[in-house]
Amino acid sequence: MSTIEMLLQELTLEEKIGMVHGDGLFQTKGVERLGIPPVKFSDGPMGVRKDHLQDQWLPVDLSYDYVTYFPSNSCLAATWHPSLAEHFGEHLGDEFRGRGKDVVLAPGINIVRSPLCGRNFEYISEDPYLTGAMAVPLVKGIQKKDVAASVKHFALNNQETKRLEVEVEIEDRALWEIYLPAFYQLVKKAGVMSIMGAYNRFRGEYCCESHYLLNDILRKQWRFDGLVVSDWGGVHNTEKALLSGLDIEMSVTNNFDEYFMAEPLKQAIEEGKLAEAELDKKVKNILRMMERLNMLPGQKRKTGKYNQIDTQDTILKIAQESVVLLKNEDAVLPISHAEGKKVLVVGANADRVHSTGGGSAEIKALSEITPLLGITMAAGGNCTVEYVKGYEASEKVNPFDTSWQEKSTEEGFSMIQNEVGQNINHQLIAEAAEKAKEADIVIFVGGLDHNHDTEGNDRKSLELPDGQNQLIEALLAVNPETILTFVGGSAVTMPWIDKAKAVVWSWYAGSRGGQALGDVLFGKVNPSGKLPVTFYQSLADCSAHSIGEFPGGNTVAYKEGVFVGYRYQDAFDIEPLFPFGHGLSYTQFEQTISAVDRAADSSEHIIRVAVANVGKTDGYETVQLYVETETDGKTYKELKGFSKVFVSAGQTETIEIVLPDASFARFEDGRFVVREKIYTICVGGSSRDIHDCAEVVMSQPFNYQLN
Amino acid sequence: MSTIEMLLQELTLEEKIGMVHGDGLFQTKGVERLGIPPVKFSDGPMGVRKDHLQDQWLPVDLSYDYVTYFPSNSCLAATWHPSLAEHFGEHLGDEFRGRGKDVVLAPGINIVRSPLCGRNFEYISEDPYLTGAMAVPLVKGIQKKDVAASVKHFALNNQETKRLEVEVEIEDRALWEIYLPAFYQLVKKAGVMSIMGAYNRFRGEYCCESHYLLNDILRKQWRFDGLVVSDWGGVHNTEKALLSGLDIEMSVTNNFDEYFMAEPLKQAIEEGKLAEAELDKKVKNILRMMERLNMLPGQKRKTGKYNQIDTQDTILKIAQESVVLLKNEDAVLPISHAEGKKVLVVGANADRVHSTGGGSAEIKALSEITPLLGITMAAGGNCTVEYVKGYEASEKVNPFDTSWQEKSTEEGFSMIQNEVGQNINHQLIAEAAEKAKEADIVIFVGGLDHNHDTEGNDRKSLELPDGQNQLIEALLAVNPETILTFVGGSAVTMPWIDKAKAVVWSWYAGSRGGQALGDVLFGKVNPSGKLPVTFYQSLADCSAHSIGEFPGGNTVAYKEGVFVGYRYQDAFDIEPLFPFGHGLSYTQFEQTISAVDRAADSSEHIIRVAVANVGKTDGYETVQLYVETETDGKTYKELKGFSKVFVSAGQTETIEIVLPDASFARFEDGRFVVREKIYTICVGGSSRDIHDCAEVVMSQPFNYQLN
Repeated sequence: MSTIEMLLQELTLEEKIGMVHGDGLFQTKGVERLGIPPVKFSDGPMGVRKDHLQDQWLPVDLSYDYVTYFPSNSCLAATWHPSLAEHFGEHLGDEFRGRGKDVVLAPGINIVRSPLCGRNFEYISEDPYLTGAMAVPLVKGIQKKDVAASVKHFALNNQETKRLEVEVEIEDRALWEIYLPAFYQLVKKAGVMSIMGAYNRFRGEYCCESHYLLNDILRKQWRFDGLVVSDWGGVHNTEKALLSGLDIEMSVTNNFDEYFMAEPLKQAIEEGKLAEAELDKKVKNILRMMERLNMLPGQKRKTGKYNQIDTQDTILKIAQESVVLLKNEDAVLPISHAEGKKVLVVGANADRVHSTGGGSAEIKALSEITPLLGITMAAGGNCTVEYVKGYEASEKVNPFDTSWQEKSTEEGFSMIQNEVGQNINHQLIAEAAEKAKEADIVIFVGGLDHNHDTEGNDRKSLELPDGQNQLIEALLAVNPETILTFVGGSAVTMPWIDKAKAVVWSWYAGSRGGQALGDVLFGKVNPSGKLPVTFYQSLADCSAHSIGEFPGGNTVAYKEGVFVGYRYQDAFDIEPLFPFGHGLSYTQFEQTISAVDRAADSSEHIIRVAVANVGKTDGYETVQLYVETETDGKTYKELKGFSKVFVSAGQTETIEIVLPDASFARFEDGRFVVREKIYTICVGGSSRDIHDCAEVVMSQPFNYQLN
Repeated sequence: MSTIEMLLQELTLEEKIGMVHGDGLFQTKGVERLGIPPVKFSDGPMGVRKDHLQDQWLPVDLSYDYVTYFPSNSCLAATWHPSLAEHFGEHLGDEFRGRGKDVVLAPGINIVRSPLCGRNFEYISEDPYLTGAMAVPLVKGIQKKDVAASVKHFALNNQETKRLEVEVEIEDRALWEIYLPAFYQLVKKAGVMSIMGAYNRFRGEYCCESHYLLNDILRKQWRFDGLVVSDWGGVHNTEKALLSGLDIEMSVTNNFDEYFMAEPLKQAIEEGKLAEAELDKKVKNILRMMERLNMLPGQKRKTGKYNQIDTQDTILKIAQESVVLLKNEDAVLPISHAEGKKVLVVGANADRVHSTGGGSAEIKALSEITPLLGITMAAGGNCTVEYVKGYEASEKVNPFDTSWQEKSTEEGFSMIQNEVGQNINHQLIAEAAEKAKEADIVIFVGGLDHNHDTEGNDRKSLELPDGQNQLIEALLAVNPETILTFVGGSAVTMPWIDKAKAVVWSWYAGSRGGQALGDVLFGKVNPSGKLPVTFYQSLADCSAHSIGEFPGGNTVAYKEGVFVGYRYQDAFDIEPLFPFGHGLSYTQFEQTISAVDRAADSSEHIIRVAVANVGKTDGYETVQLYVETETDGKTYKELKGFSKVFVSAGQTETIEIVLPDASFARFEDGRFVVREKIYTICVGGSSRDIHDCAEVVMSQPFNYQLN
């Protein structure tokens, strides 16, 4: 008999009940007599969250839980570099283990459906392929360290507005082609050990109790045998929860015995109303995960570590590779002439740390380098760096007061739903413009912060807040070479874009984010970030808003179907501000398809692409491989492969991309179908910068299911 | 004609005056029309001090001046590893240059005469040889980066009590053998570019205006042609300052034109009362330093950098090698059995940062790892770490409020002279003892902080403050294997030492100090630190107190002469708590002199020492070479060489120590004398752990001066 079977036999009903619900805000009850420890969860995606008291939302407030602030998932995504995602995961796993945690409540892999979703900074992309390609190595990295990743939120949690109850309406095709593939990849390719259910409802059920999502798809079709944990407070009914594929109910209140899967479940089983066998399934899943984590008696578990110096190397590299050079006319960048000059830095985001915000992604960072600090570090000491604020970042009344979690749903969330102001401070603008006149080099640092990119709240507008647009216009008027840089987790509009020469986008990029930005601006690093999301000219150009609904009301209809993000832009021929996959370099690349091969009995093509660096600076380029497709008479491209490669100036490197036949599939009538057809595949530096195309013949049609 | 001569000819009297006094709290006036920049000074020894407004003691309060917190000099000294000192200097130099600074107001190399001196943490040792041997590579490292080191305080600034005016009385021999040699080494071997005068008086003159110290010794005898800068407010007379070897007057007030070397000097020269030629000498010295720093027109200056990741590697290594294992009975350390156990950490110093204190050595650290964090990091996540305070660290009313600097001397210093309390909190002690009973492993972290180790104030007692001794007794009573660890910059008494099994001393050790302590406790690093000062059993065992005076009154007589530190302990056969040079390892070493060689026409011996690692752990050992000497019928040893070597377990490494003939010199009648004699030299692991001795014959007597 296996250890799991033996333990299951020994466990009393009460002990089993203790294992399937929160006995603290972030842990279950262990069974000491059998050597079964509690399961310890912790947020989150950007590092180990600070410790709270076990039964209250109060920080322990000692120095031991300072940790590394990791780049956000949106930042990691912008590197388009899966091997960095794996290193990220390894270091993140080390930190969670080092802090004694068992389950990382991350990564978030929900699709970026609208740029307004408050949690986009925690998610990866609007594209399911890129999401899966980055999340799989990330999760593998984490789980090497005897720590489970818990991908979230399963499924269709694409907005914060009414996230606790909104009913999502979506057709099967979009569900299977856009919203589920990354979850499937994580189950099958990463062996993810845990999945967190979503708050919202789908087809009449709460996702955390959804028979369709958890039993039919996840457990039966995908044969997932790991742990399913609810989002905190996502369970609403004892019987539904028991009979669903969910294993552990977590919540935000400290009346632990009253949880749906605590005393109420115990009583129902004792009274014979519900079957203990259903409970046993859950306990088995929990013990199975514990065994995989080497947590059971007799197993030897890895030790962890945190705040290590080599982690700094990894997160700096990620931050550097994530910076996206959006525009660079007249080679304004990199700054190579600062010696002896006056550099003016303008903008509240220059002097601001971001680790402390965003909701459950908040981090008690051991350190965080701001853009102002990073720019001054890169400037090197032989020039003067001056700073003026330029605008006043408006703050919510309660930026993310955790006391909401102790209140009722509506009351709690209303605390954090206050709209962030659009206060224009004309005096600050005038002062900045005056200073800019005297300066030799002007660097603006604006963007968003975790008043906007935050759990629990969606943005109401795509505009830059707090009069940043007016400030930018004023700076460009006195210095047309003003370098415009941004920190943020979601797209914004840029009405002044035609006047600007140099525009740089950076992300919530971890402890060394500001350093990475400075390194790019001063040419210590050649930028190689690519947008993982579309930057729209206006909100109306986003399909969720123009065809579908966002944020909807009690229901939200995803009427845009598969036309999400760049798919919509391309299909409907809408010019984006900056397209999906876009990102410039200080050098130039040319991509050519040198071969398309397919072995006789193979189920995949090998696409060989020659990447020539025809400029004067060494650098990375990302070859993006798109497959042309057609829906409702509209043609558009879908990302089906990519590869990032370092090419020295004047050199050419050839890379291979594997293109499985399933890349041509479409979901129809409950299954994926690949038709007999000649398909066009294209490679390029972005979804709108196609360098070369080729044809691929699929002569054997087939269909399949994701299982 | 040289650039310096040409510039000197061009300069007006007013411009020259602007160059020789503070035109800001940390900078002089430049001469823009000639391309002469201001000289920018900055504290300090533990990293670049935060930026203040140019004319007020108010921090700029932006994020750009967060920097690396470097280990204190006392910490660096405890490594006994000169190559680390050079790396330290290189990284420190990079940071100063990166912050746009020209002169580092460090290192402090005053001799640790009494363990009570408030600034001991900034100094290196009680021994002049160790001081010079560590400071020379440190300064070389700094100055590689186009930044000048300004060693301080020249001379005899060995206490903080009445430091602004106390008259030091000392005989020539002690002056030349103990207090001056390290300064001489820095001038001759490190080419130090700047020296800072001391506040105190010597032979009737303020040191910053001292004809004897600055003109006779420094400028004439040692031919120092670099910059001499006053301590802030150390100048008291225009004429004295002009005629002394001093170049720049800095002070703490913002009435810059009223400085002694500002308008008063200009007027005196204009009125013909003082000679402009004397001013020209100073300007030449300033320009010469600028030329060495590549600051003059047409020169290309290095750029700097700060907060770099590789700096973390260097300071971690220094911190690791500085930890001194004072006692380790029954191999209580390292902790190798924590898996699944309860670790209790006790003591306010565990959860405290130290970078922010100490006076001008304060640092706005980008990060600092506390001992509690470092221990938890090292513990690895498979055990629980709990913390209780154990004692309440008493704080001064004004720990180091810089507003003192705007007040009169007496009024200002009285603000920071309040004695720190000895408040015993019996409730905290009882609580800690109670917790210690339940714990498997107990780690106490106590010691000092910058309420005690601080500029402007000496300690009044050698005792651990705040009832730590009572707490330690209580912990030892419930757990005799309690691991006692300390953070501090000066020695303390340990009345409970016979009951303790494991005692570890660590220092103000930079951003990763707590990590280093954790690494040593958990055996990730084998300790190799050696005490650079004697730890006394009681204050009466220190010669400054038993023979000399400390802190004296308006005068302080150094009646102990050369019997400073371990020299006194050995000569008078007094048992120290822990001797100079002491420090254990997790392995054991045996040192044997394998050869003593001298080439025919050489002026030095080469001593070869075989170091065998006879234990089971790889590690560093420091071979300490002492020369036996005799004064007034008392025999004792003097450190004259050392070498740190890494030896794998079971292996033997042979090192060489060069022993110049001058190692046998004694200062007599205005010169150093080496007598014809057979000298005994000894090697060992501390000044009281001698492994082997040999005889060295000096058959040719000679004498010499330091010039």
